Amino acid sequence: MLQFRFLRFPLPSSNLSTLSPIPTTNLLRISASRSPSSKPRSPMASYTTSSSSPKLLFRQLFEKESSTYTYLLADQSHPEKPALLVDPVDKTVDRDLSFVKDLGLKLIYAINTHVHADHVTGTGLIKTKVSGVRSIISKASNAKADLFVEPGDKICFGDLFLEVRATPGHTLGCVTYVTGDGPDQPQPRMAFTGDALLIRGCGRTDFQCKIWVEVQNCCINQCIHRQEHEIIFTLPKDTLIYPAHDYKGFTVSTIQEEMLYNPRLTKDEVLKSGCGRRNGGGDAVAVAGCKGRSVTVAEKFKSIMENLNLAYPKMIDVAVPANMVCGLQDLAFKSA
Amino acid sequence: MLQFRFLRFPLPSSNLSTLSPIPTTNLLRISASRSPSSKPRSPMASYTTSSSSPKLLFRQLFEKESSTYTYLLADQSHPEKPALLVDPVDKTVDRDLSFVKDLGLKLIYAINTHVHADHVTGTGLIKTKVSGVRSIISKASNAKADLFVEPGDKICFGDLFLEVRATPGHTLGCVTYVTGDGPDQPQPRMAFTGDALLIRGCGRTDFQCKIWVEVQNCCINQCIHRQEHEIIFTLPKDTLIYPAHDYKGFTVSTIQEEMLYNPRLTKDEVLKSGCGRRNGGGDAVAVAGCKGRSVTVAEKFKSIMENLNLAYPKMIDVAVPANMVCGLQDLAFKSA
Repeated sequence: MLQFRFLRFPLPSSNLSTLSPIPTTNLLRISASRSPSSKPRSPMASYTTSSSSPKLLFRQLFEKESSTYTYLLADQSHPEKPALLVDPVDKTVDRDLSFVKDLGLKLIYAINTHVHADHVTGTGLIKTKVSGVRSIISKASNAKADLFVEPGDKICFGDLFLEVRATPGHTLGCVTYVTGDGPDQPQPRMAFTGDALLIRGCGRTDFQCKIWVEVQNCCINQCIHRQEHEIIFTLPKDTLIYPAHDYKGFTVSTIQEEMLYNPRLTKDEVLKSGCGRRNGGGDAVAVAGCKGRSVTVAEKFKSIMENLNLAYPKMIDVAVPANMVCGLQDLAFKSA
Repeated sequence: MLQFRFLRFPLPSSNLSTLSPIPTTNLLRISASRSPSSKPRSPMASYTTSSSSPKLLFRQLFEKESSTYTYLLADQSHPEKPALLVDPVDKTVDRDLSFVKDLGLKLIYAINTHVHADHVTGTGLIKTKVSGVRSIISKASNAKADLFVEPGDKICFGDLFLEVRATPGHTLGCVTYVTGDGPDQPQPRMAFTGDALLIRGCGRTDFQCKIWVEVQNCCINQCIHRQEHEIIFTLPKDTLIYPAHDYKGFTVSTIQEEMLYNPRLTKDEVLKSGCGRRNGGGDAVAVAGCKGRSVTVAEKFKSIMENLNLAYPKMIDVAVPANMVCGLQDLAFKSA
C-alpha cells in the first residue's frame, strides 16, 4: 500500500499574490492502493502517439533561450476549467497567461519540478499577475512556495490529478509529476520528469553532491537506480515522458524508449537484468534489494559523468537564489 | 464530389538516392466523396489535447536555429511500419534518421509543404542516406522531387494517409497535408500547414507576389480568404494545427483557436460573418461566392501586411535555390 495525500482545494478566489505557505498538515491525507497500471502492456503501445482524455487539455510550451518546456494541463470538462502550469519560466509568463486566458481556463497552480539552475521560475511572477494561484514545489527542495508536496501526494485539478514521485539526483528536491491512473485520467499516462530524466539523457548531478559517489541519496547512480527502476521505470512502458528541457529538438519520449535508448541508463547490463523486487516493497526494500548491484552501477555511471566536461552553469548564480523564493528575489529582499 | 488521387506504392527496396522524378501519370487516380467530417462538433472538442489512433505514431521535432518543426508520422500497426517526414531540415537529418531507426520504422517519404526560404530542406540528404525514400512536393512549386502532388491527392503510408490541400499565398506552391478521415485515421484530424497558417499568424506573402493586392491567386488576402475558409477552415474545429514554424514556443493549435485568436484572420468582421457558400462548390464557386467581399478583406489585410516591417530573409538566397532541388544544389550542379 502506498500512501497518497490529496491536494484538493476549492477553486481559489482570494488574492494570494504574496508568498504565504500553507501548512501541509491542512491537506487531506488518505491511503490508496498501489496503481494497477504497472501491468505489462504490448510493446506496440510504447510508441503511442500521445495521451488522450476527453477531460484533459494539454499543451507543451517552449522557452528557447533556456530550452525549457512549460506544460499546461487543465480539466476542460469541469465548469471552472481549473488549470495548472508545470515549470513556467519568468520570461514567458505573459505568453502563458495570455494563452490560459484565450482558452478560458482558470489557473489554480503554478508548479515546479525542482529548483532550476538554468532559468528563473515564473511561479512568483504569475502570482503577482493572477490572484488565487498557488505555487507548489517539493518539501525536500527547501524552497519557498504556497504548498509543499511529498512523494505519494496527489495534486487535483478538477477531476484530474497528478501524482508526486521523488526523483532526486539532479537536486535533492527533484520530483516527477505523473498523471493519474483511472478511467477518466489520460491514457497513456504522462510523466513530467523535470531534469531527472531527459530524452536520451538526464540532468547533471554535481549541483548538490560534489562527491557524488559518496552520497548515496542524491548521486546519480543510486538515485537513478532508484528513481528509474523503482519510481519511474515501473510506470507502464507507454507512459509519455515530458522533460523540463530538450536541447536537440525532441518533444516527448516514452518509458520504453528511454529504457532502450537512454545512453546513461542502458550502459550497465547488470542494472538491466537485476533488481527483481521492483514492486510492493516501498523505497526501503527497493533500495536495499538493489544495493548489492549499485556499486557496479555507480562505477559505470561515474565514468560517464566524469567525462561529461560540464561547464559551470551560466545562470546558476542568478537562478537558484531566485528560484528558492518562487523567482521573486526582489520581493523577498524587500519583505525581509 | 472532390477528386482524390492516391499515392500508394509498394514499400520501396530499390536505391533512389538520386533525383529521379516519377511521372504523376503513373499514380492511381480515383474519386472519393467529400469528407463527412465537416459537420459541426461541440466547442469543447476544439481544445482536444492531441490526436489519437492505435495505428499512428507521431512525433514533433524542432530545429532551433530556424525554429522549424519537422513531423514524423508512421503506421505502427503495419508490419513494415512505413513512415514519412514532413519538412525535414538538412541540419537535423542525422537526428531524424537515428530516431526513425530507434523506433524501428521504414522511412518511405520525405515531404515538403513548400519551397522554404528560411532553411535548407533535408529531403535530398535523406535520400542519399536511406535508399528507397521518395521526396514529395507540390506540382505548383515547380521544384524538383520524386513525386509531385496536387490538391485532392492522398499520400498513403500503411493504412493511414494524408490529404493534400492547396494553400498558396506564402508561396505559389504551398500545400497543407491533412490526416485522413475515417475509423482508423487519427481523431481529431491533424493539419500540417507549413507557413500558410502559423499559430496566431501566417507566413509572409511578399516572396512571389511583390504587388500582392494585384495578384489574386497568391496574395494573402485572396488566398487566405480562400484557403482558410474554403480549404482549411472548413475542417472540423478540433483539427490540430501543426505549423512549419513557431517563434514564441507554441507547439500546436486548433482550427477553433485560430479562427478565434489569429490576429491576421480575425480582423475583419465582414470576413467572419460572410461567405455562406463554404461547402460543395469546389474552388471556382468558393472564390466566386466570396469575391464581392474580398476587396474589403484585402484592404484590411493590406494594412496589416504593410506594417509588418519584415526584413529581407537572411537565408532566402541560399535556401530557395537549394530547396528547388531537394536541398542538393551541389549535386544538381555536378550533374548538370
